[in-house]
Amino acid sequence: MAEGPFTHGFQVRLHDTDAAGVLFFAHLLRHAHDAYESLMAAAGFPLQGLIQDGIALPIVHTMADFQAPIRQGDRIQVEVSLDEVRRRSFSLNYRFLDAEGAQRARARTVHVLRGAGDTSALPSALRTALCRWLGPPDHGSQGTASQTQW
Amino acid sequence: MAEGPFTHGFQVRLHDTDAAGVLFFAHLLRHAHDAYESLMAAAGFPLQGLIQDGIALPIVHTMADFQAPIRQGDRIQVEVSLDEVRRRSFSLNYRFLDAEGAQRARARTVHVLRGAGDTSALPSALRTALCRWLGPPDHGSQGTASQTQW
Amino acid sequence: MAEGPFTHGFQVRLHDTDAAGVLFFAHLLRHAHDAYESLMAAAGFPLQGLIQDGIALPIVHTMADFQAPIRQGDRIQVEVSLDEVRRRSFSLNYRFLDAEGAQRARARTVHVLRGAGDTSALPSALRTALCRWLGPPDHGSQGTASQTQW
Amino acid sequence: MAEGPFTHGFQVRLHDTDAAGVLFFAHLLRHAHDAYESLMAAAGFPLQGLIQDGIALPIVHTMADFQAPIRQGDRIQVEVSLDEVRRRSFSLNYRFLDAEGAQRARARTVHVLRGAGDTSALPSALRTALCRWLGPPDHGSQGTASQTQW
Repeated sequence: MAEGPFTHGFQVRLHDTDAAGVLFFAHLLRHAHDAYESLMAAAGFPLQGLIQDGIALPIVHTMADFQAPIRQGDRIQVEVSLDEVRRRSFSLNYRFLDAEGAQRARARTVHVLRGAGDTSALPSALRTALCRWLGPPDHGSQGTASQTQW
Repeated sequence: MAEGPFTHGFQVRLHDTDAAGVLFFAHLLRHAHDAYESLMAAAGFPLQGLIQDGIALPIVHTMADFQAPIRQGDRIQVEVSLDEVRRRSFSLNYRFLDAEGAQRARARTVHVLRGAGDTSALPSALRTALCRWLGPPDHGSQGTASQTQW
Repeated sequence: MAEGPFTHGFQVRLHDTDAAGVLFFAHLLRHAHDAYESLMAAAGFPLQGLIQDGIALPIVHTMADFQAPIRQGDRIQVEVSLDEVRRRSFSLNYRFLDAEGAQRARARTVHVLRGAGDTSALPSALRTALCRWLGPPDHGSQGTASQTQW
Repeated sequence: MAEGPFTHGFQVRLHDTDAAGVLFFAHLLRHAHDAYESLMAAAGFPLQGLIQDGIALPIVHTMADFQAPIRQGDRIQVEVSLDEVRRRSFSLNYRFLDAEGAQRARARTVHVLRGAGDTSALPSALRTALCRWLGPPDHGSQGTASQTQW
């Protein structure tokens, strides 16, 4: 059922950079979240619907590695894959590839179900949808869904 | 009753700048809004209370002039004064002064009452509070509360 | 030679919004700048090249009007047109249209030539390129290139 | 020589939050960087000086845990401590405490020496200065300076 990573492209803008001339580190995670929002829409769970329904999937853990400078004008492809899905949480891996396919950075986010209504388990349709993008095991991964309490 | 401008200080951070080495222009308005939030708290109307009550004062117009470069590390004092208060709207002027007191930029925001409940008029306590910071007439001003429909 | 406005699309992301539920006003100008960067690349003057050459076109004036709420998930088309080009400066108008073509906001930026080398005049190739997107006269416009000293 | 953590305070602003009503996760790292900038200035190495000298200390790894919601208006105290300093890199831990002293989040950044001139070792004066804020061993820590190649 897995169909490879979900992809999301963007171009690095001037406001993404700082006076040191490269991407300001925290903005990488903003772009990761953009990719996550597109993935959730593709999964049939656009965030605007979740917010209206009072459902939240807040990020309880994140990490990022910066392997090479990213500069204004660079075109970046983000590959998002599911690391793990559990009863009430899931974790996503992000790879940031440049136009030559070289990895410039990677990131991870761990999301936990919160909010109004039944928060005992993720909707099964969401779990099924996320599994389309299940990635290979990442033995070096830290901060996975398994490490949450949920 | 006017007591001079409301003041709010900040230091320019790396993420405020871009690869051209100076403040990214839109971030000036972010700092203007920080000053506005502090002013509203000082007026007895902190934004968190307004949001909880379903009251909004969205900005319907803004402008800014950039008169000299602003760089990472600069300490900036923002002087906020009331330009005009009307039945359902008000406008604020912002002056951005450097450590020597020289004006590096200025901005304006126009806010209009929206949201739940009675939106026919601003709370009179808010109007009174805002008048503490009434500034001198700004004959060159554009985008004042008078230009709104409200 | 004018060929109508330059267009740039984006989708409103969660980080564009704030706890009041709508686009944080200053982020509109960030999106305007994204459109400007794409326009400059289409004109043959990508910003990364200008920055490398020590040429800057800083924004000395900006304004924006907010006509209707913009929310997470909204797809916005930005139409950019040249308002005016002068010896050392130019101004751009931005219209923000929703999926139904209704205008939700508009903005303007005025850019002035600065930096290393000859700053007495914009490169003529840039002036010619910008004129491809010359818009109709905007009689209500404020903060045009004409109002700069350059 | 250690004198306890370096402290930096801030108030959560509207633009820090998103339509879900709480701090947008990546903005926590922006605030961590603000604290880092203040720490570097206190250490005698303000970033503006490093940038002018062509020295960079880019972040090659970061992580954050979000333990409780952070909302607009909240006053947060950041406690920064040195996790580890090595020949060419160092790592910092950040604790985000609310007005009651409860920890709402924590973060880490790992910085590596890059740039013009001698990058074989951090200036010894910087190493000495950073040691003022050496924290207790964090046995659960991941992404420390030790894990870099430098």
